[in-house]
Amino acid sequence: MSKKILLSGVKPTGRPHIGNYFGAMRQFVGLQNEYDCYFMIADYHGLNFVQKGAEMRDNIIDLAIDYLAIGLDPKRSVIFKQSDVPAHTELAWIFDTITTMPYLERAHAFKDAEAKDKEISVGTFNYPMLMAADILLYDTDVVPVGQDQKQHIEYARDTAQKFNNIFGQGQDTFKLPKDLIIESVKTVPGIDGRKMSKSYGNDISLFASDEEIRKKAMAIVTDSSGGVPENVRAIHELIRDKEYLDRLYTEKAGKYKDLKEALAKDLQDFIRPMRERREKLAKNRSKIIKMIEKGGKKARKAAEKKMAIVKQNIGVTLN
Amino acid sequence: MSKKILLSGVKPTGRPHIGNYFGAMRQFVGLQNEYDCYFMIADYHGLNFVQKGAEMRDNIIDLAIDYLAIGLDPKRSVIFKQSDVPAHTELAWIFDTITTMPYLERAHAFKDAEAKDKEISVGTFNYPMLMAADILLYDTDVVPVGQDQKQHIEYARDTAQKFNNIFGQGQDTFKLPKDLIIESVKTVPGIDGRKMSKSYGNDISLFASDEEIRKKAMAIVTDSSGGVPENVRAIHELIRDKEYLDRLYTEKAGKYKDLKEALAKDLQDFIRPMRERREKLAKNRSKIIKMIEKGGKKARKAAEKKMAIVKQNIGVTLN
Repeated sequence: MSKKILLSGVKPTGRPHIGNYFGAMRQFVGLQNEYDCYFMIADYHGLNFVQKGAEMRDNIIDLAIDYLAIGLDPKRSVIFKQSDVPAHTELAWIFDTITTMPYLERAHAFKDAEAKDKEISVGTFNYPMLMAADILLYDTDVVPVGQDQKQHIEYARDTAQKFNNIFGQGQDTFKLPKDLIIESVKTVPGIDGRKMSKSYGNDISLFASDEEIRKKAMAIVTDSSGGVPENVRAIHELIRDKEYLDRLYTEKAGKYKDLKEALAKDLQDFIRPMRERREKLAKNRSKIIKMIEKGGKKARKAAEKKMAIVKQNIGVTLN
Repeated sequence: MSKKILLSGVKPTGRPHIGNYFGAMRQFVGLQNEYDCYFMIADYHGLNFVQKGAEMRDNIIDLAIDYLAIGLDPKRSVIFKQSDVPAHTELAWIFDTITTMPYLERAHAFKDAEAKDKEISVGTFNYPMLMAADILLYDTDVVPVGQDQKQHIEYARDTAQKFNNIFGQGQDTFKLPKDLIIESVKTVPGIDGRKMSKSYGNDISLFASDEEIRKKAMAIVTDSSGGVPENVRAIHELIRDKEYLDRLYTEKAGKYKDLKEALAKDLQDFIRPMRERREKLAKNRSKIIKMIEKGGKKARKAAEKKMAIVKQNIGVTLN
């Protein structure tokens, strides 16, 4: 029996931090055993944020290298970029025509973005329809998401059902996807204790040098109560088990500098092999580009098969 | 020197009436001498209105036959359907990312549609961006439009300029299109004197039978002042010159039935050859389909050339 299908997309809009890694990316590696995986570089989503050609190009290649460095395997999974498959935007348009304005205006992400800035892009507003197309093109069974992104999958489900009802002719064109809530790590805290986020400046870069890691670890915000420095231990918990940490934090209770140094060393040891793999991969840019192209070809083949059915059902195929 | 480029799109959403013909379609025929023309069957725009596969399919083929019957020449012009060129929706998405919500919300067509029905489709809202893509993909110089559609061309111009500014790198990606206001006939009146429109039920079908034409002509609304029946003469003016009409309407002043019959006969003579050409063309459906496919290939070639530049400039092409 063939495996179920998983799709995940990441926008190529900047360098990942360990919050991205422990929050989602790490889980992708193991999911490759359970699912037939599509890992998408969501460049057309990213275009809402990065509007400089050279930067976008570098971001795409960097993200592909990141994927490989953490252990995604292009032989087992399809690693591709969205813009290599024109069916994504084509299907998003088709969905636009069966979706009403009030329905899309109810999206959380849109309401949040609009609350901050009235001048948001149409692409930000229309984002759930492109995401629905991303997901539905590949008969995706599950999409790994955080709790706060569940609504995106609901939009994809709703849209699939709507299309099936309007154009299905008794047969479902689209499979209804489900979310796969990644439970392992809920929220990765930053060095100030708030959720790790580049916008807060409290993040630790996933492929940071030993020196950078040390600097960040030493800068973790602690109170002066003299007990366990919670913010240090919270990050430490990402890479070390409870037993080890209980012993360490008892032994060094109140010795914040020592504990930060212990965390720094553990983080360095954890990150170093990935960083070194990344550096090696980055040397052969043309090989990475070829890998992305190959993934694009595979994704395109699957997407075109689905689009042929879609076009037949909406009646733009004439034969 | 090569000719300037003209693009015109018509939605395959129903049968044309003589208002469509005299208002726009007839002019297309002559424009083929002056311009390199793209005549697009705008099926992806039409999908906002026609959501039944079989109906859409028939509408597309019917519109292609209409084009040929009125005298468009697939040897000189590119007659194609939008859905055969995925670059249209792809470029529309790219434009979405550089367009703000308030800018698009200011579009007249959107405001009018929303005033009538809050539940309009996202495709209706996003229509100006797909239309901008339609126009800009082909380095279009002019787009023939009625006075009320000038804003669409302004949106395309604005969007071209915006893209050129953001991504141009000193060179313009897109040519700025101009509207070509068709002056010859401003508004074609219907049989009740209001603008001819299917929604008013006051239209005369372009390929109507002699019998249908007669029925419609006899049903033209007239007052009983006994002078010149304005609504009859207004339609008559579309197909006969002033001298002929002055003589006729003087001679038959007050004789409404005679004048309506004269109009019916003139309309029948005008429409008959087109209708007969249409009937002949309609017999060979597969030939029509082949013609559309061939046009699609030509359009795709031009569009892909432009998209290669676009993708290079936004940075999603990696080499």
